[in-house]
Amino acid sequence: MVEGAVLLREAATAGLEVECQFVAADSSPVDVGGSVFRLADGVMERVASTESPQPVIGIVRTPHFDRSVLELADFVVVADGVSDPGNLGTMMRSAEGSGADAFVVTPGTVDHTSPKVVRAAAGSLFRLPVFEVRQIDDLRRSNLVTIGTTSHGAPCYSDVDLERPIAVILGNEPRGLNTNLDVDEWMSIPLAGSVESLNVAMACSVVCFEVARQRRADSDTVEAR
Amino acid sequence: MVEGAVLLREAATAGLEVECQFVAADSSPVDVGGSVFRLADGVMERVASTESPQPVIGIVRTPHFDRSVLELADFVVVADGVSDPGNLGTMMRSAEGSGADAFVVTPGTVDHTSPKVVRAAAGSLFRLPVFEVRQIDDLRRSNLVTIGTTSHGAPCYSDVDLERPIAVILGNEPRGLNTNLDVDEWMSIPLAGSVESLNVAMACSVVCFEVARQRRADSDTVEAR
Repeated sequence: MVEGAVLLREAATAGLEVECQFVAADSSPVDVGGSVFRLADGVMERVASTESPQPVIGIVRTPHFDRSVLELADFVVVADGVSDPGNLGTMMRSAEGSGADAFVVTPGTVDHTSPKVVRAAAGSLFRLPVFEVRQIDDLRRSNLVTIGTTSHGAPCYSDVDLERPIAVILGNEPRGLNTNLDVDEWMSIPLAGSVESLNVAMACSVVCFEVARQRRADSDTVEAR
Repeated sequence: MVEGAVLLREAATAGLEVECQFVAADSSPVDVGGSVFRLADGVMERVASTESPQPVIGIVRTPHFDRSVLELADFVVVADGVSDPGNLGTMMRSAEGSGADAFVVTPGTVDHTSPKVVRAAAGSLFRLPVFEVRQIDDLRRSNLVTIGTTSHGAPCYSDVDLERPIAVILGNEPRGLNTNLDVDEWMSIPLAGSVESLNVAMACSVVCFEVARQRRADSDTVEAR
């Protein structure tokens, strides 16, 4: 369910199939295809997920991505049990913006197709291949080094070599990842002051853009040779 | 207004004066001082800012910080016209966690003492000196290099020397900073994929922790000598 003309156009631009559109009484459909259903007065207010609903809602087919994407990936972000839809959407936006090849969710994570995730992802959900894995261990079949994030006690994230093919795993708010999780490595973001931990979406942004920075720095070096 | 025992204790630990506490009918005050007022049944539900209110609300005196903090500061984060309280609180948390000495707000920014900001800041508001300046230009009286952030077209943030005494300025969502703003320098976060821009709180986290990384990297070099 995609709310609003702007997001619906982004979905169509990303190649997603719009199955149908529900249009408020006084509005027009978006030029993205799909059957059009006009809603009676006051219906949109009851079905939309926001207090000030957008004039159009589209039902968009979830894209199917081949698992080979994961096997060929260089950088994957994993949300393991993330429960807040705003956080999950934000994490997808950071993942795409920092160059991740794919995004992975585990069963404990909030439904990544829910309207709040769609909104927070600001289009990234339509473009980034998203996979569900039953457990983190399933990622082992790929060549990715699995790196868990924890708020304390692991090597500093910026000292970790993030240019290798990696899957960066972030956990539930407020619990974090299970420390018994079977990952290859762990990393932490050192915190100043009396800050106990970062919100999972902030931590994801910080780590993702450090991945991008290390890779950019390295490609600059290669170019300079 | 500080909602909940956990945050109220953080405020007291940070040295803030608790003026009074409003306690729900079936709850107890927190051991942090201040006059205690018991609320009749159902009153807390009406005055609290959340749907599931905390059993205690404290009124805490806003700490006064001397302006000399700004003059001696090495790293300041500035919110210029940030309108979402959740974003502002998150920015304060990132600022403290990355070692900022102070936080600055301009008149167009949402009230930084509002309950939603207090909650999103998760205690950082109590510890970080917060100043209001009428305009960015007022920061020029300090020795800080003012660096504006923009979504496109400026030097990459990780190529900018962030070890100098700096004030990093972030603008309103969704407009960003006024490009006519009289700052010393500009920087951008390069974005992959089709991501147009980052949310202001994410951008703040990414830049703040790059400041921390550069300074940590430099101090490691000094130690290694």
